[in-house]
Amino acid sequence: MRNTFGHIFRLTSFGESHGECVGGIIDGMPAGIEVDMDFIQNELNRRKPGQSHLTTSRQEADRVNLVSGIFEGRTTGQPIAFFVENTNQHSADYDRLRNVFRPSHADFTYWQKYGIRDHRGGGRSSARETISRVVAGALAKLALRHLGISVQAYTQQVGDIRLPGTYEDHDLTAAETNPVRCPDKEVAERMARLISDMKAEGDTIGGVIACVVRGCPAGLGEPVFGKLQAELAHAMLTINAAKGFEYGEGFAGVSQRGSQQNDLFIPDEDGGITTQTNHSGGIQGGISNGQDIYFRVAFKPVATLLREQRTVNLEGEPATIKPRGRHDPCVVPRAVPIVEAMAALVVLDNYLMNKTVKID
Amino acid sequence: MRNTFGHIFRLTSFGESHGECVGGIIDGMPAGIEVDMDFIQNELNRRKPGQSHLTTSRQEADRVNLVSGIFEGRTTGQPIAFFVENTNQHSADYDRLRNVFRPSHADFTYWQKYGIRDHRGGGRSSARETISRVVAGALAKLALRHLGISVQAYTQQVGDIRLPGTYEDHDLTAAETNPVRCPDKEVAERMARLISDMKAEGDTIGGVIACVVRGCPAGLGEPVFGKLQAELAHAMLTINAAKGFEYGEGFAGVSQRGSQQNDLFIPDEDGGITTQTNHSGGIQGGISNGQDIYFRVAFKPVATLLREQRTVNLEGEPATIKPRGRHDPCVVPRAVPIVEAMAALVVLDNYLMNKTVKID
Amino acid sequence: MRNTFGHIFRLTSFGESHGECVGGIIDGMPAGIEVDMDFIQNELNRRKPGQSHLTTSRQEADRVNLVSGIFEGRTTGQPIAFFVENTNQHSADYDRLRNVFRPSHADFTYWQKYGIRDHRGGGRSSARETISRVVAGALAKLALRHLGISVQAYTQQVGDIRLPGTYEDHDLTAAETNPVRCPDKEVAERMARLISDMKAEGDTIGGVIACVVRGCPAGLGEPVFGKLQAELAHAMLTINAAKGFEYGEGFAGVSQRGSQQNDLFIPDEDGGITTQTNHSGGIQGGISNGQDIYFRVAFKPVATLLREQRTVNLEGEPATIKPRGRHDPCVVPRAVPIVEAMAALVVLDNYLMNKTVKID
Amino acid sequence: MRNTFGHIFRLTSFGESHGECVGGIIDGMPAGIEVDMDFIQNELNRRKPGQSHLTTSRQEADRVNLVSGIFEGRTTGQPIAFFVENTNQHSADYDRLRNVFRPSHADFTYWQKYGIRDHRGGGRSSARETISRVVAGALAKLALRHLGISVQAYTQQVGDIRLPGTYEDHDLTAAETNPVRCPDKEVAERMARLISDMKAEGDTIGGVIACVVRGCPAGLGEPVFGKLQAELAHAMLTINAAKGFEYGEGFAGVSQRGSQQNDLFIPDEDGGITTQTNHSGGIQGGISNGQDIYFRVAFKPVATLLREQRTVNLEGEPATIKPRGRHDPCVVPRAVPIVEAMAALVVLDNYLMNKTVKID
Repeated sequence: MRNTFGHIFRLTSFGESHGECVGGIIDGMPAGIEVDMDFIQNELNRRKPGQSHLTTSRQEADRVNLVSGIFEGRTTGQPIAFFVENTNQHSADYDRLRNVFRPSHADFTYWQKYGIRDHRGGGRSSARETISRVVAGALAKLALRHLGISVQAYTQQVGDIRLPGTYEDHDLTAAETNPVRCPDKEVAERMARLISDMKAEGDTIGGVIACVVRGCPAGLGEPVFGKLQAELAHAMLTINAAKGFEYGEGFAGVSQRGSQQNDLFIPDEDGGITTQTNHSGGIQGGISNGQDIYFRVAFKPVATLLREQRTVNLEGEPATIKPRGRHDPCVVPRAVPIVEAMAALVVLDNYLMNKTVKID
Repeated sequence: MRNTFGHIFRLTSFGESHGECVGGIIDGMPAGIEVDMDFIQNELNRRKPGQSHLTTSRQEADRVNLVSGIFEGRTTGQPIAFFVENTNQHSADYDRLRNVFRPSHADFTYWQKYGIRDHRGGGRSSARETISRVVAGALAKLALRHLGISVQAYTQQVGDIRLPGTYEDHDLTAAETNPVRCPDKEVAERMARLISDMKAEGDTIGGVIACVVRGCPAGLGEPVFGKLQAELAHAMLTINAAKGFEYGEGFAGVSQRGSQQNDLFIPDEDGGITTQTNHSGGIQGGISNGQDIYFRVAFKPVATLLREQRTVNLEGEPATIKPRGRHDPCVVPRAVPIVEAMAALVVLDNYLMNKTVKID
Repeated sequence: MRNTFGHIFRLTSFGESHGECVGGIIDGMPAGIEVDMDFIQNELNRRKPGQSHLTTSRQEADRVNLVSGIFEGRTTGQPIAFFVENTNQHSADYDRLRNVFRPSHADFTYWQKYGIRDHRGGGRSSARETISRVVAGALAKLALRHLGISVQAYTQQVGDIRLPGTYEDHDLTAAETNPVRCPDKEVAERMARLISDMKAEGDTIGGVIACVVRGCPAGLGEPVFGKLQAELAHAMLTINAAKGFEYGEGFAGVSQRGSQQNDLFIPDEDGGITTQTNHSGGIQGGISNGQDIYFRVAFKPVATLLREQRTVNLEGEPATIKPRGRHDPCVVPRAVPIVEAMAALVVLDNYLMNKTVKID
Repeated sequence: MRNTFGHIFRLTSFGESHGECVGGIIDGMPAGIEVDMDFIQNELNRRKPGQSHLTTSRQEADRVNLVSGIFEGRTTGQPIAFFVENTNQHSADYDRLRNVFRPSHADFTYWQKYGIRDHRGGGRSSARETISRVVAGALAKLALRHLGISVQAYTQQVGDIRLPGTYEDHDLTAAETNPVRCPDKEVAERMARLISDMKAEGDTIGGVIACVVRGCPAGLGEPVFGKLQAELAHAMLTINAAKGFEYGEGFAGVSQRGSQQNDLFIPDEDGGITTQTNHSGGIQGGISNGQDIYFRVAFKPVATLLREQRTVNLEGEPATIKPRGRHDPCVVPRAVPIVEAMAALVVLDNYLMNKTVKID
């Protein structure tokens, strides 16, 4: 259970790495939105494998097919089902894994929980599942575009290499100009080298993705258990390999004093109210305050190493494992569009929920 | 909306800081559990104000009254409603706040969202709301106790003062022997001094709470959108002032290589399977693996400063504010039982959900 | 579990017949609605026991106390908790029932399901639980009033005595002028005599309640699983003793032909579109069409007879039972406000959900 | 929204009559169940169009394709997605309907609600959507079979022709031996003639389906808002053309006295407890009591008449309409497997929910 995300705008996803296809159903898509198929496909291309030497060599066209809920180019308010075929499975690569547990993968826990597992490529626990999120996120972005809300993520850290400054110090559009998705060209190159080095060693490395939501109106978020940051944290921690979430000043801010971190309210230029600073990360009391919402997500190093590791088999006996599969040495570059997608789902869902707060 | 937490074991909470009472309804409490009222009250005492010089001087008895769902000392499976009276409101203290927005509080966002706000003590956004969580968490702990599952949190950091080592390096029961709730006496004293200093300056400071769940069986967590870490992250980020969540190696782990962080499977002493290390934090693929589950939560410095701050009023005109209310200079010591409570809710809820995975 | 009703506007209820109190929490109440306490109390008075010789002699003041979510007389958008004390329990009346199962009550099934039961007055399965529905319904009606939507129910049948015609043939306000709540005075008197006769014989009788929702705009209802009629049917069948639901032409309409039952669209006086007839009962394809929504609910005879009945005890041995409690000989008159309340919950909830169908 | 049905075992459905395909995702399917594809396809064949002269002449192979959640012939506990292609659309038949509203169809209400509609064959409101229910119901039946629970429905009434007696008076397996699905051959023939007559006249007729669930253990159903009968009523009223639901003695029982309708508890042969009669319909207090659960569903005459009817166009101007599409003169025979499917969803879902009532 729990393959549905969201409250009003809801994605239900399905599919295994080595099954026929992956996909999902989006329920609650607002009616009357024009469907820009090129945009959706392009979002999917941003996460697709094989896009650079830094990612897995699995080749997938990842063409999305939307089969319902759209009439004459516009959404009808009915559920939108979609699927993406799996064409490049090398299931035989996994035959040797049938009886052993890959370290730090979901093999063992799925087997414990369900008493059965699809050993081919991680089955349902494969990152291939995130395709559904990107498609749903792309549809959410189309709706958010009408509302003037944008979501942009980028690679902020790979291993020890960290992009200095905040999102405001960089031209984020530059993130899409290099395979690492870091907006600073020089830093991106160092990150790329580190990832290449890891690949050469059959090892992997972690990283951090930062994300900013701009143009979000005040009022989104549903206290006390649907606070906007809680929804974002939930969304991000469902992504494979994510290990942490922080927003605003986050963990670093715990060392600060209230007098440093408080965001003073000031009049804005239009006679409205704004804040002098935005240490809060655009959310106060669980509700957006109209400032930029920014947060960071930590990703662990990929668990699949292209080197021999010790493990046990189904009977609990010692065994060794050396994957032949095709894997990313660092999940971060391809996770950038996934982080954006999940953020878009949360923001649109909360936008719709917020419409029900008053009766007119 | 969204004042309900959980899927099977569900807490719905209500109440404002300066209303008649706060409380909630727990639905889905397993039937037949003996209700240890002393334990529940004691949990509540752990979060109550005025328990030491480090916390707010608001005096509340915080006696919990359970009014349904219990028959002859045992749970009946019917909803358990409970109330805790507010007795020590000083609502008049807040009259001056009626027309101004406190910096980094929820005043502005509630007003933007609902068009109305209860300005007295933050209304619904007050940390007093967390009473409901502690009561529900205490009931969850009573059920978890039958299952051999324990949840324990402690203060790991206040400002720059950080307890070295991991949860395994300390006797966590010692955390309850000092007002800061740090298991190391010497570190606790330094933390206490820092908090006292902040109080003396009318300032506040942040901190970090660490938490460990022991005895959790393998199999809890519902991929892909109900992964156990996502539920925990969600739970923690709903707590007032929480700014970040990480589990296992968390943010620090992003600099590591896969070969360092992977947890190799090994045979255990009983012929079962365990892991050599537990960098994963007890969860793999969103499902508990039987190891200890550990995570950390970052808390920002409390926004209420007992010093004058600039702000604006309802009309957006510049104003100043200087609270007279009674506030904690650091939220962390009293948040320890709240973190435990939310973790207990998540674990019990997932335990119950996991019962539905197979038909027998 | 499942003590919550609704999706956006949600009632979570609690309480047993012989506990301290019954009540609930309403989440999702729109903000800014003026709270007319007299109206709410009056709704509760309509269902309260002891209001006439036709109902149970249990005397309860049934004063409602709203303890949160209201500030200066208006709803704040925060959860509204409320409770009503139980003051007139005669728990000792039920001591003899501790070990036996009352025929056609919930005693046996609660015991089977939960392994424990509160034998006093049916515990949670008592109709006293419906107090929460009436309070929540009253709040829903206050919101619906702003939208020009009204809900009115009345007694249409008691035993074999049936009010002729449809809701359009009667002045429904007259229903509140007699204890049976039938809008026709003469029919009401015959119904009252039948109920009195039943009471005299220690027996009980069933009946039918009809209900009409007027002023409901087109567009409410969420296909395919949240069709408006499905929500209404669900709501009605949760009421104690309800055995059937039908809307529009209902069961009788199955004998008709399509050419008789179709509602032809015609221009209305204002240049809009209406229907020539309303056999559909105001709902087409699961969505309200702007016409009156009308439906009927069947109620079985009350199971508690004031005469001796055979049964078995906890050990399955034959026993006899003769209640001394205070009971209604016919549930229908007091169920009229409950039917209205549940309908109001459904309509408001669907009104709010419908706001999310488009983004502007 | 609301295209998901169920709480633990959940169907999310998609698809329009004239789109590429219809289908759904089943989440919460218990793991380890063997998937009998022939059985699933056979269930689908029972609802498929064109199976006799009494049904629409639309020809569809309706081959189901299950694309996830199954590994080596058994369910894995992961979501099961499935598709059924639409191959025999005659969309051009509907071109003339683009600007007019078909009487008593969902055209008008969808247009009012969503501001857009797919006019081809009713789009999402088409009964073709029920394919998803039958597939999900077939999977539910496979799980229920392991539990010894069966669900069987049959045609009890067409127009004025009613099968006498109760489900116990007939061999229900005989229902599948004739195209009307009435277990009495002679009555079935009269029903068939009536339907044929209607078809000849371009008219339609309603009917009633009865259903019995056998082998259901005591304990299923979740008071107070998830009572088993409420879930069943909800499920049934989501089916196209359904206008009423009753269980046990239903509407007819309102004329009875409590002394007639009460089901007395008696010892059973195995030292357990049973009831002397089953007027309650197998549910007491919202929870199954171990007896047969039986209920009836009323279906209105199909709204599509093959004759000219008056209506209005999008501008509200008078128009006429005469469908050329292919339609059933009576929905009841093909709705029998749909009623069964929805009942199976409810029972399995409640079986799984009931597992969470106790912790061991």
